[in-house]
Amino acid sequence: MLEGMSLAEFDLISRIRARVRQRGDVVLGIGDDAALLQVPPGRELVVTADTLNVGVHFPEATVPADVGWKALAVNLSDLAAMGATPAWCTLSLSLPQADESWVDAFLDGFLALADQHGIALVGGDTTRGPLSISVTAMGLVESGNALRRDRAQAGDDVWVTGTLGDAAAALEAVLEGRGCPEWLRQRLDRPTPRIAAGLRLSALAHACIDVSDGLLADLAHVCERSGVGAEIHLADLPVSAELAAAPSANRWYWQACGGDDYELCFTASPRNRDLIVQALDFTDVSATRIGRIVAGQGVRAFDAQGLEWKQPRLGYEHFT
Amino acid sequence: MLEGMSLAEFDLISRIRARVRQRGDVVLGIGDDAALLQVPPGRELVVTADTLNVGVHFPEATVPADVGWKALAVNLSDLAAMGATPAWCTLSLSLPQADESWVDAFLDGFLALADQHGIALVGGDTTRGPLSISVTAMGLVESGNALRRDRAQAGDDVWVTGTLGDAAAALEAVLEGRGCPEWLRQRLDRPTPRIAAGLRLSALAHACIDVSDGLLADLAHVCERSGVGAEIHLADLPVSAELAAAPSANRWYWQACGGDDYELCFTASPRNRDLIVQALDFTDVSATRIGRIVAGQGVRAFDAQGLEWKQPRLGYEHFT
Repeated sequence: MLEGMSLAEFDLISRIRARVRQRGDVVLGIGDDAALLQVPPGRELVVTADTLNVGVHFPEATVPADVGWKALAVNLSDLAAMGATPAWCTLSLSLPQADESWVDAFLDGFLALADQHGIALVGGDTTRGPLSISVTAMGLVESGNALRRDRAQAGDDVWVTGTLGDAAAALEAVLEGRGCPEWLRQRLDRPTPRIAAGLRLSALAHACIDVSDGLLADLAHVCERSGVGAEIHLADLPVSAELAAAPSANRWYWQACGGDDYELCFTASPRNRDLIVQALDFTDVSATRIGRIVAGQGVRAFDAQGLEWKQPRLGYEHFT
Repeated sequence: MLEGMSLAEFDLISRIRARVRQRGDVVLGIGDDAALLQVPPGRELVVTADTLNVGVHFPEATVPADVGWKALAVNLSDLAAMGATPAWCTLSLSLPQADESWVDAFLDGFLALADQHGIALVGGDTTRGPLSISVTAMGLVESGNALRRDRAQAGDDVWVTGTLGDAAAALEAVLEGRGCPEWLRQRLDRPTPRIAAGLRLSALAHACIDVSDGLLADLAHVCERSGVGAEIHLADLPVSAELAAAPSANRWYWQACGGDDYELCFTASPRNRDLIVQALDFTDVSATRIGRIVAGQGVRAFDAQGLEWKQPRLGYEHFT
């Protein structure tokens, strides 16, 4: 628990501890065998854990501040998809060597996002090993009110926040050594967890997931868990001006199957259309209707001519 | 959150999910963006996170079941040191390739220990990367009753559970390619988190830490956090019959500075001596008095002749 397995490690942890913001509900933070946290009555604890490995989840050339931001962002995105309010996190950081300037820069990004959401880093460890970052994020939700994947109903609209495909377009440019517009690169390196949207949608949406592996793959998880199917209209997928300005044969693939967007895909009754638009007026993102939930199973996508689109694969495949 | 970033990964997660035991306080486990957990009123949440990397925290030849056991055990040991009851955990597993038989064997060890303590695996992820296991363990403690590092008082006895040095002796044998008694090897590969002892000590001890980095290094953390010093008598350090039977010039070093024992080192008023012995009668381990807390700072160790022992270094040093 963020404590000294060596003098070198202890120095790293002192650097981390000195920069961590406090919260009133943290009885005991970094510096003991474990953290002590207060969960208020009437709340459920929401817990998610995700790891980023160099060369797998971010390109080697990614600057450490962006690695720090993204390591927390992908976890907060899971909390957003549950309609939870972020509260605390732990950080397990494996580094090839004790590099204080790297850790300082990593923390610049990690803590900038943590502070934005008032989340306290309460523990973890630093170890020697190939660069890898494991974060566990904890949040709170009113008991019984969490957004889940398994509540989609036939007849629901399917919505998605923000725009799709930006991160996949940027990743391809990075991997091919091409330049790409800074805004697209930020979408890849500094994703925005849709916390405020998740909170406002929890009373209006039936089911929700964050788009980390690609829209069709993630929506398929919702359908499978809910025992329904979905139909998506590719022409309705929200596209950023930056992506639209860079025509590519891959656009549909990036939008429908690209990962790392960290938008929220949710389903809701058509009766709630106006309420949803109004609710998101108070957040930094709007949402677009892209299809509907149907009886049956599986996700089908249709192009502007109404023809079914057969994509080569659903999402990014680890281990293959 | 233990969900499919690919078909291969999804298969791994299905294997994990199928084997996980349920708990009544898990509203939603593996399979959504995050887990939903119920913390009872009057309890504080206790959270710890630790990572094991191949070649750093366990030898490459360690069998996967032992890796699984140890990855959870080192985290449960932190909960034990807080006097907490284990409840839930997340698992982030990085693997070079999707190896189902490796994962099955890993789970044999991980879940055997989880089941022993009634702890539920509620989330995490599997990713591609060098072998690395990050676990976050969560437990519960009556509010205000946690054991901490910062409560040692001058005049306290210093105690340690079980025996010291077994794991360090076994590690040296493994690294040098020598055989070692099976019991010692088990102490290295299958440490026993002292959960029951921690629970019974929470009303009797002032301060507590688990011995993961070596007795003197870990006791130094207690002293630093409590603003006190400590004096330890090497001749009083509890030694196993197996370690005593293998005379080595390294014995004192293993016992005082070797890591990976995962015993509890705690301090308590001398008035509680009998109560402590009685309390541990109901657990699988006893405790030995090894010294006392004094005013001042730093940990000093004395040999049987009363001479101060100057050890070469305090504990295992990462990054060096």
